[in-house]
Amino acid sequence: MGAAHSHAWRTAHRFFDLPLTPELRTLAGRNPETLAAAAERYGFAGTTTRWQDVVEDPEIDVVDICTPGDTHREITLAALAAGKHVLCEKPLANSVAEAEEMAAAAREAAARGIRSICGFSYRRTPALAYGRRLVEEGFVGEIRQVRAQYLQDWLADADAPMTWRLDREKAGSGALGDIGAHVVDLVQWITGTPIEAVSGTLATVVPTRPAAGDMQGLGGKGDVSGERQQVTVDDTALFSARLAGGVLGSFEATRMAQGRKNAMRVEINGSSGSVAFDFERMNELEIYDATAPAGRQGFTRVFTTEPEHPYAAAWWPTGHGLGYEHTFTHEVVDLVRAIGEGTDPSPSFDDALHVQRVLAAVEASHDDGSRWTAVSPTEQEQDR
Amino acid sequence: MGAAHSHAWRTAHRFFDLPLTPELRTLAGRNPETLAAAAERYGFAGTTTRWQDVVEDPEIDVVDICTPGDTHREITLAALAAGKHVLCEKPLANSVAEAEEMAAAAREAAARGIRSICGFSYRRTPALAYGRRLVEEGFVGEIRQVRAQYLQDWLADADAPMTWRLDREKAGSGALGDIGAHVVDLVQWITGTPIEAVSGTLATVVPTRPAAGDMQGLGGKGDVSGERQQVTVDDTALFSARLAGGVLGSFEATRMAQGRKNAMRVEINGSSGSVAFDFERMNELEIYDATAPAGRQGFTRVFTTEPEHPYAAAWWPTGHGLGYEHTFTHEVVDLVRAIGEGTDPSPSFDDALHVQRVLAAVEASHDDGSRWTAVSPTEQEQDR
Amino acid sequence: MGAAHSHAWRTAHRFFDLPLTPELRTLAGRNPETLAAAAERYGFAGTTTRWQDVVEDPEIDVVDICTPGDTHREITLAALAAGKHVLCEKPLANSVAEAEEMAAAAREAAARGIRSICGFSYRRTPALAYGRRLVEEGFVGEIRQVRAQYLQDWLADADAPMTWRLDREKAGSGALGDIGAHVVDLVQWITGTPIEAVSGTLATVVPTRPAAGDMQGLGGKGDVSGERQQVTVDDTALFSARLAGGVLGSFEATRMAQGRKNAMRVEINGSSGSVAFDFERMNELEIYDATAPAGRQGFTRVFTTEPEHPYAAAWWPTGHGLGYEHTFTHEVVDLVRAIGEGTDPSPSFDDALHVQRVLAAVEASHDDGSRWTAVSPTEQEQDR
Amino acid sequence: MGAAHSHAWRTAHRFFDLPLTPELRTLAGRNPETLAAAAERYGFAGTTTRWQDVVEDPEIDVVDICTPGDTHREITLAALAAGKHVLCEKPLANSVAEAEEMAAAAREAAARGIRSICGFSYRRTPALAYGRRLVEEGFVGEIRQVRAQYLQDWLADADAPMTWRLDREKAGSGALGDIGAHVVDLVQWITGTPIEAVSGTLATVVPTRPAAGDMQGLGGKGDVSGERQQVTVDDTALFSARLAGGVLGSFEATRMAQGRKNAMRVEINGSSGSVAFDFERMNELEIYDATAPAGRQGFTRVFTTEPEHPYAAAWWPTGHGLGYEHTFTHEVVDLVRAIGEGTDPSPSFDDALHVQRVLAAVEASHDDGSRWTAVSPTEQEQDR
Repeated sequence: MGAAHSHAWRTAHRFFDLPLTPELRTLAGRNPETLAAAAERYGFAGTTTRWQDVVEDPEIDVVDICTPGDTHREITLAALAAGKHVLCEKPLANSVAEAEEMAAAAREAAARGIRSICGFSYRRTPALAYGRRLVEEGFVGEIRQVRAQYLQDWLADADAPMTWRLDREKAGSGALGDIGAHVVDLVQWITGTPIEAVSGTLATVVPTRPAAGDMQGLGGKGDVSGERQQVTVDDTALFSARLAGGVLGSFEATRMAQGRKNAMRVEINGSSGSVAFDFERMNELEIYDATAPAGRQGFTRVFTTEPEHPYAAAWWPTGHGLGYEHTFTHEVVDLVRAIGEGTDPSPSFDDALHVQRVLAAVEASHDDGSRWTAVSPTEQEQDR
Repeated sequence: MGAAHSHAWRTAHRFFDLPLTPELRTLAGRNPETLAAAAERYGFAGTTTRWQDVVEDPEIDVVDICTPGDTHREITLAALAAGKHVLCEKPLANSVAEAEEMAAAAREAAARGIRSICGFSYRRTPALAYGRRLVEEGFVGEIRQVRAQYLQDWLADADAPMTWRLDREKAGSGALGDIGAHVVDLVQWITGTPIEAVSGTLATVVPTRPAAGDMQGLGGKGDVSGERQQVTVDDTALFSARLAGGVLGSFEATRMAQGRKNAMRVEINGSSGSVAFDFERMNELEIYDATAPAGRQGFTRVFTTEPEHPYAAAWWPTGHGLGYEHTFTHEVVDLVRAIGEGTDPSPSFDDALHVQRVLAAVEASHDDGSRWTAVSPTEQEQDR
Repeated sequence: MGAAHSHAWRTAHRFFDLPLTPELRTLAGRNPETLAAAAERYGFAGTTTRWQDVVEDPEIDVVDICTPGDTHREITLAALAAGKHVLCEKPLANSVAEAEEMAAAAREAAARGIRSICGFSYRRTPALAYGRRLVEEGFVGEIRQVRAQYLQDWLADADAPMTWRLDREKAGSGALGDIGAHVVDLVQWITGTPIEAVSGTLATVVPTRPAAGDMQGLGGKGDVSGERQQVTVDDTALFSARLAGGVLGSFEATRMAQGRKNAMRVEINGSSGSVAFDFERMNELEIYDATAPAGRQGFTRVFTTEPEHPYAAAWWPTGHGLGYEHTFTHEVVDLVRAIGEGTDPSPSFDDALHVQRVLAAVEASHDDGSRWTAVSPTEQEQDR
Repeated sequence: MGAAHSHAWRTAHRFFDLPLTPELRTLAGRNPETLAAAAERYGFAGTTTRWQDVVEDPEIDVVDICTPGDTHREITLAALAAGKHVLCEKPLANSVAEAEEMAAAAREAAARGIRSICGFSYRRTPALAYGRRLVEEGFVGEIRQVRAQYLQDWLADADAPMTWRLDREKAGSGALGDIGAHVVDLVQWITGTPIEAVSGTLATVVPTRPAAGDMQGLGGKGDVSGERQQVTVDDTALFSARLAGGVLGSFEATRMAQGRKNAMRVEINGSSGSVAFDFERMNELEIYDATAPAGRQGFTRVFTTEPEHPYAAAWWPTGHGLGYEHTFTHEVVDLVRAIGEGTDPSPSFDDALHVQRVLAAVEASHDDGSRWTAVSPTEQEQDR
């Protein structure tokens, strides 16, 4: 994440007209031995092992938080209190309570002109942003159904080693929170409609894994000892969701889908059309126009590299695709513009809080035999 | 269905070596005015408006039942009692109780050398039959997860007219029973594992539809009057399933998937590989071999027209695809061979009964707030 | 071919309304030992080892000629002279001179109400017939360029055995005449424009092959002796073509395209759109509409199983594909209708003759260092 | 190109371990009014309107030449003479004579430790680099045939305006030189085999175009006056090629392929396998293994984002694709490493010279009625 974020901060103003020019001032990290090299590589002017130094530095305007989820709350609250704009990676926090506190702080800060954004960067994929625009413009008509999957396979191998991502204390959640969160956010954003209830099931298909010599996550095998450790988070999450207004959606987040590397798929079916996306082909959007002349209907593969597509005009000629890191660069673009224009960027912490409530409701439903469970806001929010 | 079945009976022995040669003797139907023309077109020697004539005819060996589900039980029982082999279209019956009675009769008849088969013809798609063989041979390793969808779109239009298929009294069930049944059967057959429990949700996304002048089903628009009628079956079914041994599967059957014409999809993910199929490309099977050399892994599009693929050697040279009706022809091939060899064909009525129990459990789960619900066999069966 | 043709004759009137009902009367063949079994399997009432018996039989109306190319001329001329309608497989003949004689005979017979058709059956693929209709209706606008390939791979293995298809004396030509002929016909038919000149290159990439014990063709390995025999036809043909009006096309026919099983591809690019087809996905047509709203343009995958698509309404519901043999069934449908209606079916022998002239021009160009070579009709034709 | 190149120079050392760290010192350009802003945006420390300043600056080690082709020779010769390493964009020059002179200079400079590289950056697409490795390792066996296309559509619209790229004096060549050059280079590089002879045809399908108010190229419409101007380069090039050893390839470069945005396709067919690529899906390589078990053969879609794939390990987790600009970043990586290691990078000027000779031979063949024409090196080279 550090590599992707710093690349975005270095690159955004080189391709987009921004009201302000980012500078990478201080990289905060825990390991003093590797920090200087990282700062050199990523282009930061200085380093610190105390994140408080960043929050307190009067020269710093924006704090970008890529730390594990259990530290998000503390850093974010301090940064907002100190008047820094905040980009906080997803998930916003490891619990709904923490997320509520952060969202409240962001609301309060916004009143002071301080901006907050949560890092659901996939929203900035041109194809998905274009899909959302089509839905908003009525291209699909009345929404009939939603389908969302996030399929990976790096845990299908029972001997893939244990990592901190599979430890509930550190990671908070498994496939549900890590990748399921993305498709929850995307569906709500593209349809413009919150999820109100869910019925879900979680599973840990491979319940123990070899201990890794070092716990570096994401498939790094490291030195593996003979002992097996307990996986304490889900590796598979299946759930149905009901959106405000009644539309049903099927959701799946799994790391057991052998052969699917990063198949983050969203499909919106409507009365007059559909849009469908798969991140494994991130430069394409499939659209179906049910109002096209009979005989000529079918899914159209739109190669979202035309000037008409969001973000695309800043880059290469038609037909030349973008990569994963562009989603972060676009996130920076939108944040910096919001700061410059004095507007609130999206996704807000409230958006991220709602995602977290959906995930919590899936867990609650799972614990209740998968019964339909409401995604309830707090009373305080209901009063607003 | 009549067109497809009669084509299969006329064609099977022209391409496959069969121990017996089918003859189309009597077409039974309700409408005396159209019956003769239908028999002429389909190649039957005679006709009757009393199905009993077929069952009683000593010259007839096989009864092929394509009538609506509410008549299956009576005809089947009579035919089996009369010593006829029976091919009964799916769903086996409109209720579990009826299906149980039929399965019991089939078991009893089998003891007398009378064969029964239920028409889940998709099993005879070469790509799916090959996928099953791969799973059976261990290609995917230990199964980790299952994914099955049957997506159609002919009800996404709110003004598609009412038909008997949308009337619970006549059709018994909607998307769940009509198309969901196929993917339930396929998953159980390919994995060789029954579904033991489900958590499901049904919906009728478009609850009223224009009355049709005539009720002919499957999108036929006919004359539509102004009045709207109540749809009394589901048009969308979402459910999770737990297979014996614990594997989870996500299932979806819907007629709201705008743009998806006949996307019957099954994907089996395992520890060492995957197989994936979509009926919209019925001559292809996607397979993933996790044991292939690093760097060369990926989904392989197998064009299942090689001599090694089930049924394919009887047809055309490599690379020349088959169509929908071949699934029926292959069904006839397998039935006639079973009759000739004195073996029991598949899917048995017991297989079909279990499918029906799964569907019933989905409905029960839906009525219970989508709670996990066991697919319970009767005590009698448990004793067997 | 016999299996496919007889299937078509048995099946056409079962799905289409025809003015006449075909009956399979006499199967002519050379091997008296296998003939009776073949007639039984294919559904013929009788057999003969003298093709003349067929031509002379007053009960026979249509002669369907599936013999090797070197016998087409004699049988066709006799059949037409005897007042039989003729379906002659492609290539029409093994030389332009023979084809000219046959085309002249067909023209003369047409004046007497006798119909002739050459078996370029791919024209009857619904997707291709629909593509042609779109081009005719102006969907692609002014044609800018044409691209056609027929890629197979069964000769990429240097040890695939010798067959009669690789012997110039028997087969006349190799990849060019056998598969290249199809794409030449399709391009001329879809664009409605004849090819006027070509620049081509032929090659025999694998010049010797193991002798097969029996020479049965198309990849059948049979018993292979140690000796290698000379391949006397091309296995690869590359050519550029200029259509009347000046449009350029690139053509390729090869049996060296490892992994391509039956990739017969045609793409027409125009000023306002494109159509593209690949027989490996024969139920799909890709269409591109350059007049669609900016941002929504892309290739649309039309699943040509809708009632609006040629031939499709006679078969299955939307989304249920057809197979290779349907192209023959549709050919029979069109021929029988033409006979019933007293019209001339297409492709005519003149169409087939022009294909043959194009192939001959490719060979002439190859012999002349690939120089552009005119496809010249005879003086007689120029006078007509 | 300036945007892509400067991005690469800024980014390479952030993701790859390089022996030297690039700094962007001086941007040379013609327009003093826009130069400062461009330098600011692209991250250059200074600017000049005299390219000689760059060549003469003792602080500068590398000169990156992105100017139009008619200036390449002069700048390159000066830079090499001054002891600067040179990255020169393709085409190396506008004539074979110029390219010969440059290649000779590069050879001479190499003896002094000065490195030269020509910007055929597509070689650095991970999928293509991996495809080459597979061919080199024998994956496809003996090469049987080659197929290469570069399809674009921005000139299919007859009213797309005139640009300098369509003016022979400025651009030297059209589709052949601009995009055809890429696939010529790729085929030679992947197969490791030079093209020895060609038979080709060029065309200008749309011979006149509206004059543009400003001539900015690549589809920019600008202000279009009523007058139409003559297009003096080809917009379509078709040719066959014979590689050393005799393998045939079919080539096509066109800007008339309506709907194809950047379909740069290369396919290598061999005795035991194939590799196929399309830049519209630049993160995928299709591979076919003819030695796989019968029944399991088919094209495998390799998602070239695994650590085993060239360049991929430096970027994102498996399944997260790269974009167009990465090809330039990888080019810089390879050049800087070559400089650091004292080796000669690829493609050399000699490689680029041979590409240019192939293009010249295509033009010569076209002028000679498309006859096969040798790609002849000069006598001097033959002696080497």
